Amino acid sequence: MKPSSSRFSSALTGPLFAAAAVDAAIDDEAFLRAMVDAEIALVSAAAEVGVVPSEAAAVIAAACESLEIDIDALGHDAEAAGSPVVPLVRLISDAVGDDAKPWVHYGATSQDIIDTALMLISKRSGAVVVAALEAAADTCASLAAEHRDTAMAARTLGQQAAPTTFGRKAAGWLVGLDEAADRLAAVCEHRLAAQLGGPVGTLAAFGADGDAVGSAYAAHLGLQSAPLPWHTDRQRVLDLAAALGEAAATAAKIATDIVLMAQTEVGEVGLAAAGGSSSMPHKHNPVDAILVIAGAARAPGLVATLFAAATPEHERGTGAWHSEWEPWRELLSVAGGVCSRTATMLGGLQVNSVRMQGNLDATGGLLMAESVAVRLAATIGRSTAHDVVGRCVKTAATSAQSFAEVLASDPDVTAGLDSAALAAALDPAAWLGIATSQVDRAVAAHRDRRRRSP
Amino acid sequence: MKPSSSRFSSALTGPLFAAAAVDAAIDDEAFLRAMVDAEIALVSAAAEVGVVPSEAAAVIAAACESLEIDIDALGHDAEAAGSPVVPLVRLISDAVGDDAKPWVHYGATSQDIIDTALMLISKRSGAVVVAALEAAADTCASLAAEHRDTAMAARTLGQQAAPTTFGRKAAGWLVGLDEAADRLAAVCEHRLAAQLGGPVGTLAAFGADGDAVGSAYAAHLGLQSAPLPWHTDRQRVLDLAAALGEAAATAAKIATDIVLMAQTEVGEVGLAAAGGSSSMPHKHNPVDAILVIAGAARAPGLVATLFAAATPEHERGTGAWHSEWEPWRELLSVAGGVCSRTATMLGGLQVNSVRMQGNLDATGGLLMAESVAVRLAATIGRSTAHDVVGRCVKTAATSAQSFAEVLASDPDVTAGLDSAALAAALDPAAWLGIATSQVDRAVAAHRDRRRRSP
Amino acid sequence: MKPSSSRFSSALTGPLFAAAAVDAAIDDEAFLRAMVDAEIALVSAAAEVGVVPSEAAAVIAAACESLEIDIDALGHDAEAAGSPVVPLVRLISDAVGDDAKPWVHYGATSQDIIDTALMLISKRSGAVVVAALEAAADTCASLAAEHRDTAMAARTLGQQAAPTTFGRKAAGWLVGLDEAADRLAAVCEHRLAAQLGGPVGTLAAFGADGDAVGSAYAAHLGLQSAPLPWHTDRQRVLDLAAALGEAAATAAKIATDIVLMAQTEVGEVGLAAAGGSSSMPHKHNPVDAILVIAGAARAPGLVATLFAAATPEHERGTGAWHSEWEPWRELLSVAGGVCSRTATMLGGLQVNSVRMQGNLDATGGLLMAESVAVRLAATIGRSTAHDVVGRCVKTAATSAQSFAEVLASDPDVTAGLDSAALAAALDPAAWLGIATSQVDRAVAAHRDRRRRSP
Amino acid sequence: MKPSSSRFSSALTGPLFAAAAVDAAIDDEAFLRAMVDAEIALVSAAAEVGVVPSEAAAVIAAACESLEIDIDALGHDAEAAGSPVVPLVRLISDAVGDDAKPWVHYGATSQDIIDTALMLISKRSGAVVVAALEAAADTCASLAAEHRDTAMAARTLGQQAAPTTFGRKAAGWLVGLDEAADRLAAVCEHRLAAQLGGPVGTLAAFGADGDAVGSAYAAHLGLQSAPLPWHTDRQRVLDLAAALGEAAATAAKIATDIVLMAQTEVGEVGLAAAGGSSSMPHKHNPVDAILVIAGAARAPGLVATLFAAATPEHERGTGAWHSEWEPWRELLSVAGGVCSRTATMLGGLQVNSVRMQGNLDATGGLLMAESVAVRLAATIGRSTAHDVVGRCVKTAATSAQSFAEVLASDPDVTAGLDSAALAAALDPAAWLGIATSQVDRAVAAHRDRRRRSP
Repeated sequence: MKPSSSRFSSALTGPLFAAAAVDAAIDDEAFLRAMVDAEIALVSAAAEVGVVPSEAAAVIAAACESLEIDIDALGHDAEAAGSPVVPLVRLISDAVGDDAKPWVHYGATSQDIIDTALMLISKRSGAVVVAALEAAADTCASLAAEHRDTAMAARTLGQQAAPTTFGRKAAGWLVGLDEAADRLAAVCEHRLAAQLGGPVGTLAAFGADGDAVGSAYAAHLGLQSAPLPWHTDRQRVLDLAAALGEAAATAAKIATDIVLMAQTEVGEVGLAAAGGSSSMPHKHNPVDAILVIAGAARAPGLVATLFAAATPEHERGTGAWHSEWEPWRELLSVAGGVCSRTATMLGGLQVNSVRMQGNLDATGGLLMAESVAVRLAATIGRSTAHDVVGRCVKTAATSAQSFAEVLASDPDVTAGLDSAALAAALDPAAWLGIATSQVDRAVAAHRDRRRRSP
Repeated sequence: MKPSSSRFSSALTGPLFAAAAVDAAIDDEAFLRAMVDAEIALVSAAAEVGVVPSEAAAVIAAACESLEIDIDALGHDAEAAGSPVVPLVRLISDAVGDDAKPWVHYGATSQDIIDTALMLISKRSGAVVVAALEAAADTCASLAAEHRDTAMAARTLGQQAAPTTFGRKAAGWLVGLDEAADRLAAVCEHRLAAQLGGPVGTLAAFGADGDAVGSAYAAHLGLQSAPLPWHTDRQRVLDLAAALGEAAATAAKIATDIVLMAQTEVGEVGLAAAGGSSSMPHKHNPVDAILVIAGAARAPGLVATLFAAATPEHERGTGAWHSEWEPWRELLSVAGGVCSRTATMLGGLQVNSVRMQGNLDATGGLLMAESVAVRLAATIGRSTAHDVVGRCVKTAATSAQSFAEVLASDPDVTAGLDSAALAAALDPAAWLGIATSQVDRAVAAHRDRRRRSP
Repeated sequence: MKPSSSRFSSALTGPLFAAAAVDAAIDDEAFLRAMVDAEIALVSAAAEVGVVPSEAAAVIAAACESLEIDIDALGHDAEAAGSPVVPLVRLISDAVGDDAKPWVHYGATSQDIIDTALMLISKRSGAVVVAALEAAADTCASLAAEHRDTAMAARTLGQQAAPTTFGRKAAGWLVGLDEAADRLAAVCEHRLAAQLGGPVGTLAAFGADGDAVGSAYAAHLGLQSAPLPWHTDRQRVLDLAAALGEAAATAAKIATDIVLMAQTEVGEVGLAAAGGSSSMPHKHNPVDAILVIAGAARAPGLVATLFAAATPEHERGTGAWHSEWEPWRELLSVAGGVCSRTATMLGGLQVNSVRMQGNLDATGGLLMAESVAVRLAATIGRSTAHDVVGRCVKTAATSAQSFAEVLASDPDVTAGLDSAALAAALDPAAWLGIATSQVDRAVAAHRDRRRRSP
Repeated sequence: MKPSSSRFSSALTGPLFAAAAVDAAIDDEAFLRAMVDAEIALVSAAAEVGVVPSEAAAVIAAACESLEIDIDALGHDAEAAGSPVVPLVRLISDAVGDDAKPWVHYGATSQDIIDTALMLISKRSGAVVVAALEAAADTCASLAAEHRDTAMAARTLGQQAAPTTFGRKAAGWLVGLDEAADRLAAVCEHRLAAQLGGPVGTLAAFGADGDAVGSAYAAHLGLQSAPLPWHTDRQRVLDLAAALGEAAATAAKIATDIVLMAQTEVGEVGLAAAGGSSSMPHKHNPVDAILVIAGAARAPGLVATLFAAATPEHERGTGAWHSEWEPWRELLSVAGGVCSRTATMLGGLQVNSVRMQGNLDATGGLLMAESVAVRLAATIGRSTAHDVVGRCVKTAATSAQSFAEVLASDPDVTAGLDSAALAAALDPAAWLGIATSQVDRAVAAHRDRRRRSP
């Protein structure tokens, strides 16, 4: 078999759960490039502040840019040192002359480079995830606007409950996606920080200039400058983890609804790219929705692993920090895959409004029971109305009469509602509350948001 | 045995992990009270908007205030209905006259009341948790200021690494606590929202007035008004979960450091309220620190459970929502207990600066190896310096000479550093980088923060 | 409001997720009783071996039996000591004369008593959970036998896929339940062990008699005797956790199927005790199934918390062990609630075979596409057959003809299958494979199992 | 940068957490090979039973053996189908003539092949993990035997508590490792089963021969034959997950002890392959122990993800199953890496018995307080003895006298213990209980175990 090219995850199953554009920003090559970026920023910042000679800094930066690195060999050497930074620093040192050598990695510790690199790839891939959430939200906004008045059954606890519109359902998805995009964008902007503390967080090698170097370093990298090195304060990582986990959950909620609406017996939506079955050619599996659900199902465990790692010992931990490396990237990959696929999935969503209306009608008016009960409650009291309507529901269920017919012949009902009032009580379109104005508002808010940050 | 009084958690082990002030805000009585508050706010808001008669609203509110509820009986009745709101609404209905009856719980669904009640108790208990974090931070600020210059060994990967000060360590704790308090306070202010959507999120029973009722309802309760009902968009819950999980982790990091510093062989700190052992009278167990670690260890699993619950089906879920009820309160309880106990623990922290200095000296200067290597690197190159110092370290380890003596007699060292430079390189106080200015800045930032929000 | 009586969990929401019979075996009173049982067994075993005077042992055992303990007060006192055993031992000591006092809790440490007590309540409650699983399995066996030939649509990825029988579905549930019951019963019998190691696992206070005391202690309690004290080897706890988590998942799988089959549009099952809605009187919420799903959703987080606690430091840990106390009992409670409710739920399951047949017919034969494709593949090749049948599926979907009609008029189909062969290929009852023999085997295996361990 | 060769995980950081021998059994190539093995076994079994022509089976098997597969391309094609099996089957079909084509993948569904392949690679890699646990146990047995009498301080709650021996500590590790190896070996032998159910678990395409084909298929693969297809009963997966999680926890407990004993201030052990620091040449980081802790820290989250996936819908799930694929392999990889590294780590463990004795002596006899208290309790009562010893402990802590001196001059002590009795009470070697016989027993049991299954 032919070996696969470089990937962060499995070449065999990874494409089902990851997104190429996200993984390109976090794969081994991207991660290593970010470590190199951190080393360049470090020496450049130190030179600006004057604690490293400019010539040495220039030599080191140039050497970094032209390094040829064998990732497998580096990974192999990383094992003995407990970190890929140790062999990387050796490679850089080997590539520069004796004058520059002392200044390679000067003042830093491995964790400075790895934490910063993880933040860099989080920022780079985070932007792709935000864009995917926005693309998904754009489609939701269109769906919501288009189907603002498309009536369908709302369902609670698995049961048809009352009417709503498909636009209203899509507006709910939309608000969730906008919220997730806003949060993730905010974390990427405000919480992703450079890490520079030196071996024990005091930046000892820079004497009194530690702060100045730290600020210049962060500025070089386009990351936030933290008030203190955060070697053992992992709240920034957790903010990112939560934002990614919430994005994944928001996407999976949509996919869950789609799988349920796509059920053979419900048939309200289909996906353009429905998967064929190897054994059942008639099936139209909502593959994208299923893969979104599957990817998102891994997020809570990854979030928990990162939360559990957030109590490292003393000035740098004894394993907790190392345990973040792979789940951190995996969570970026999973969330990225899930959000990208959600955008694709929504783009291929086929809405069957005829089936929606058919399902709404299938209960012979039973779905309007709340409407009738509420209107009846105003005249005969809530408890009595509840009982009366309940009785009619049961009668309809066991007789040949529809719910509407049963109501019309029940004296307790007719005592409270005349025939016009009863007809109004049974009209789904008259029992939508503020569904359509909710749609309008969500769509308008989304368009405003997109106008502000295009 | 005598039955315990009303509690949310175990009467036997709960006091070890919970805080009375937090649990009082989330226990069964508080939760039920919050549900009643929601019902009062609902009917009052509806009356303000004019969709419920003012007289009925007044009657219902008064009845709610004077309800006598047997919690055990209510819990028993809740089982059949799948929700405690159903029997609660029945109790309220039973307590009012026929005119008011139809308006009890009018327009709402059980989830509106439970979600709102959980948000209310989150807000009420959240304020206590924030206060505990602030109290802990106040103590950290004092410790940091007092021990700004108290030298001690910094440790990484479990090994002494380089000098720092205890003030610097406490400043690291302080920044973490302030960050956790800020985040939790922000979530409590901006993300805890009232829930009002009616059975399927359209507020159908209020006709066109749904938004007006929703806003008034939120205002009554002092909670945010969400753009849409969030029955199936649980990101607000997850924001709270993450903030609580981060607070717990931040506290547990401190406790972990304390347990390690309190080890018999380290002896740098002790706790005022050290636990006696039933079998070993000489032991001074750092009980508070251990209980903080133990409580916080439950947070990641609870956070994961809430993240996993965040994809409810359709308009209201088929189990995911119900699965939040107990972990949500438990996470509040655990985080509250952990943060409160951290404040207590820090208040009783006894710092032994003599042992800190002793441990710093124990390696015969080996701890200053980085200092020596860095200073030497400037003249003989980083790699060479690393090798030379490494050789001296080994010699010191296997000979009777101390590291300082070995260095002084090594020609490669003396070629690079004269005796004054070597002495300076071996002085811990001269290798603290910006540790003390980091302390000053963290303490100043904390005092600013407290001045702004007293 | 009236305070609730003694409970382990919330009196308000606990009844929805817990089972009274299970919680009675693990609540505070039961847990405390088990601690007292451990103290009695300890002193009795030591007396048997001759390291404690028989008179003292008798006095202590008698005092234990007649202790009156205020659980709230004990919990309060437990906080300072970091363990409820410290104040418990004080109570016992206070209740005996000076001769017996030295022998109270002699040779043991707090962890010995708490671990043993948790094992005892696990054994006591575990038997109830096993019985609930068996009751659920009994009902499944009846359902499987009764509906052995009741045809219905099997569904994969949310889509109708091919025919099966409801008996076959119930047989799948049955095998899962029997497997879960077997595993939990095996863990209860073989893996629940007494704990006795003394302060550091060497049983020092008993001199050379440690093993003899340990064995007698385990025998008194009806628990296994471990090869070594397991203070820091928590695999027994994890075996139990996994068995409980698997039982909960097995139950939740059944509940998930029931919720899906109970959907308004599917309508194949209902629950006897369907929950009324406060606002929608027509709804028949499958409350029991939803509560099973909700309870089980908490198990993975609890399992993870226990697995994360399984690396305690040195001879007894610094927090990991304490973190087990509440999740351990909570997992017993959750699994117990879920399994008990599953038995109830299955007992009230109403099967609607008419709807099952209706759903099977709803696709106009599309469900038999695999059957047709397989039979056709034998003559025209698998890929071609797949393509041909796929083409017919599409035609049927977009024309007025049913799938059967399309097939009958397709020359590629008729070339491979004559009309009798096509009719056979379209008959659901002829495409059940070994479904019915699978039912018979599963039921027979269950009955055998129950005969062996009644 | 040079692309890495085929791997399951990151080439950059994977080597720190994985073991080459384990990953070789689960990487993409191995996983794909196992799928091909399943297809070969399927057609061979069907031919044996007579439902597939022998010639066709031989052709297909031969084609499978000589397939050249581009894993990247297959992964790419897998995405659209939602499974790598669909394009794999296409490749096989393309490689055989028209006579054999209809019989490729005959009667199976994608999940049959993937589940079986995952079980196969679990069995193949599981044997490597068991061997690693056994190798680690062998070293523990040697350490236990060699250091049977090497006295050291036992520690509880982070405090020195009483004497033990290093052999006793190693014996505790040993029992844990043997237990973990036994469990994993048992799961590999009894619980890893072939999967064959066809699209909906009825094996419809094989008519009445489904069972016979299923049994022959399992026999071909060397896997168990399950009573029913387990498409939606995931307990076998969970048994494996629990066994792997327990193995990882058992290893991490050892690594945790080593990190703590290797602390600079404790210095009781070191690792042969101690990691150099890039910035601190004197450091001897216990890298292997830290990587074991880090790897094992990911296990609970992965275990939880698999437990959460164990409730798939209907006959095959809508995402839950797909969510297992990557965590399942990742858990094998993590557990394999952790256990292999533990064997290496223990092989390089350097024990410093001088420091052990030094730490034991450091408290001036305080460590023997329990010994004194217990001996004293026999004469003056437990509570009084506890108080008296406690008073002496305090005096020793605040005076220049050692604990032994304080005791010797305390009238309450001397009233209960004469000077010989006091000396005996203060001798660590006389307060080891059954530590050495515990060592002997654990080592003997291990050697027995290894003799039985070499």
